[in-house]
Amino acid sequence: MFENKDQSRTSLSALGEFGLIDHLTNNFAIQHAETVKGIGDDAAVIDTKGKQLLVSTDLLIEGVHFDLAFMPLKHLGYKAVMVNLSDIYAMNARATQITVSLAVSNRFPLEALEELYAGIELACELYKVDLVGGDTTSSTKGLLISITALGVAEADEIVTRDTAQEGDLLVVSGDLGASYMGLQVLEREKQVHQVNPHAQPDLEPYSYLIERQLKPEARKDIVELLKSLEVKPTAMIDISDGLSSEIIHLCKKSDVGCRLYEEKIPLDPQLINVCEEFELDSTTVALSGGEDYELLFTVKQDDYEKIKGNPNLTVIGHMTASQDGMNLITRANTSIPIVARGWNALQNED
Amino acid sequence: MFENKDQSRTSLSALGEFGLIDHLTNNFAIQHAETVKGIGDDAAVIDTKGKQLLVSTDLLIEGVHFDLAFMPLKHLGYKAVMVNLSDIYAMNARATQITVSLAVSNRFPLEALEELYAGIELACELYKVDLVGGDTTSSTKGLLISITALGVAEADEIVTRDTAQEGDLLVVSGDLGASYMGLQVLEREKQVHQVNPHAQPDLEPYSYLIERQLKPEARKDIVELLKSLEVKPTAMIDISDGLSSEIIHLCKKSDVGCRLYEEKIPLDPQLINVCEEFELDSTTVALSGGEDYELLFTVKQDDYEKIKGNPNLTVIGHMTASQDGMNLITRANTSIPIVARGWNALQNED
Repeated sequence: MFENKDQSRTSLSALGEFGLIDHLTNNFAIQHAETVKGIGDDAAVIDTKGKQLLVSTDLLIEGVHFDLAFMPLKHLGYKAVMVNLSDIYAMNARATQITVSLAVSNRFPLEALEELYAGIELACELYKVDLVGGDTTSSTKGLLISITALGVAEADEIVTRDTAQEGDLLVVSGDLGASYMGLQVLEREKQVHQVNPHAQPDLEPYSYLIERQLKPEARKDIVELLKSLEVKPTAMIDISDGLSSEIIHLCKKSDVGCRLYEEKIPLDPQLINVCEEFELDSTTVALSGGEDYELLFTVKQDDYEKIKGNPNLTVIGHMTASQDGMNLITRANTSIPIVARGWNALQNED
Repeated sequence: MFENKDQSRTSLSALGEFGLIDHLTNNFAIQHAETVKGIGDDAAVIDTKGKQLLVSTDLLIEGVHFDLAFMPLKHLGYKAVMVNLSDIYAMNARATQITVSLAVSNRFPLEALEELYAGIELACELYKVDLVGGDTTSSTKGLLISITALGVAEADEIVTRDTAQEGDLLVVSGDLGASYMGLQVLEREKQVHQVNPHAQPDLEPYSYLIERQLKPEARKDIVELLKSLEVKPTAMIDISDGLSSEIIHLCKKSDVGCRLYEEKIPLDPQLINVCEEFELDSTTVALSGGEDYELLFTVKQDDYEKIKGNPNLTVIGHMTASQDGMNLITRANTSIPIVARGWNALQNED
């Protein structure tokens, strides 16, 4: 797809490292007064104006986290930023800057990296984030993206994952499992394509799932919504590895248990249809699928009136005493322990 | 060297991602009051106490930036931190936190990563830096380390690379070229070892050069020295790609020229001997070698009395008008233009 067979495409070695960074980043505008100095020196300079600083970092690796056979580079750039911003929003903070480091093999022409940076730039524009630094180097194999996201918040605004209390309500934004099923659809289409390259797939019935996989959005809007509703979560985490895995983190860090109600888990109708088509249990997909980038948080019971009926928020359970354990209450009203079956980043083979 | 053939060694997939991060980082102590929250949540929290924040990031990739045939993993961990701290010191700032992300193939057992983290931990201890976050994932090939370093400084302490003035003195810390020649020695020994695995090399005559390559130190001490001498550089950069490349950056960013005196370039006696042995010109090695991690900076002429005679600092030239160009004045008193021939990170093959 991006092999550099076309001699009209520009090889990276023709530009050199400094020319490459300049070329890829010269469209990026600085949007925050706090960004005193961006790209172009040994380090970026940021003035947090007395606020506390948030820092989070993630690596995305070709063949482990993404497959360029069906992930367009512009989407990949956008998604890589979202994955990182999501961690800042999960602290109830405002994301302000990112650094982007790339390792690329010579198989990628300049035009491929321009596509990738077009996605990064779109994400920066829409989410009001400044690109302030990075490193670009060659890799011996494939493409790797390392992003560090910075954010700011007043000290008393920050929400961590270790402060949920017994009796708090467990709330999730959006719906779950769609990204995972989007990936299943794309992987099936890839196999079909390998057998019959001229097949014209009709992906319309899967459009929402595919969009959730290829172009997820970080929930900046939820942080703003909660602020406008005057609800400060008691604890919060983002859902990257699957609902069950994140619930276990919240409970263990906060030393509480929980009751999660299967019937409350928000599922898109398209997800339910496609789970039937794939003969997968939609609850299992929602619990273990991952890459939702929704926010999972707890609120005091007193805040229920403020959030109820909001289409972006669903109460899915409540926190209990630690010794009561973490339990899923099924539709049949039986209680089963929640186990982590999220995607494990370290199971891949050499 | 680190192949997982020994069944007594622990495979990474046995731990899982979260177990691995916990295991590798549970010895790390938080040393700064500014580090409000380190590893263990969606993001780290830092209070810069009204100071400005510095951010820098670097990627190190096996087969591009390091060769595990002669780079012990503990040294690699240490060096990876140094490379990043050096960028913070080059802003005349104090390094305070790092995040470390790793991508590793299953060829590495847990014990190899423990070695790597032992080097990272030593660097954090000696340089008083807190490890506050990171990401650990699998790679399809080899080892990759992505580090982001954070630092703080008062706004009026920060020194950038674009503020050198005509007439300023050009100063460098330490000596140059040794790291590059250390690499040449190690690569020669690797070839000898491949031909005759039982050869016992005598590396004593190369000890300084090898140490500079395998265990470089970032010049925190120079930032502190300049502060104690009450000298604020007018511009500063660290030497990672070779003296000539960094001088060109300083001059272009500051819109000045320079005269660099060949006879002033500080060289270690061991470097001079080994350059003779390898039939290389020591000035060329110092100009283009790279990986010195010394600081290159400019000071006002009025500050000359404060720095002269200091064994850590050498005046190697002075800045001129931009139209006079960037010139090396040779020992034969001829003037030749300075060209960048530093190591180019993007020349490697796929």
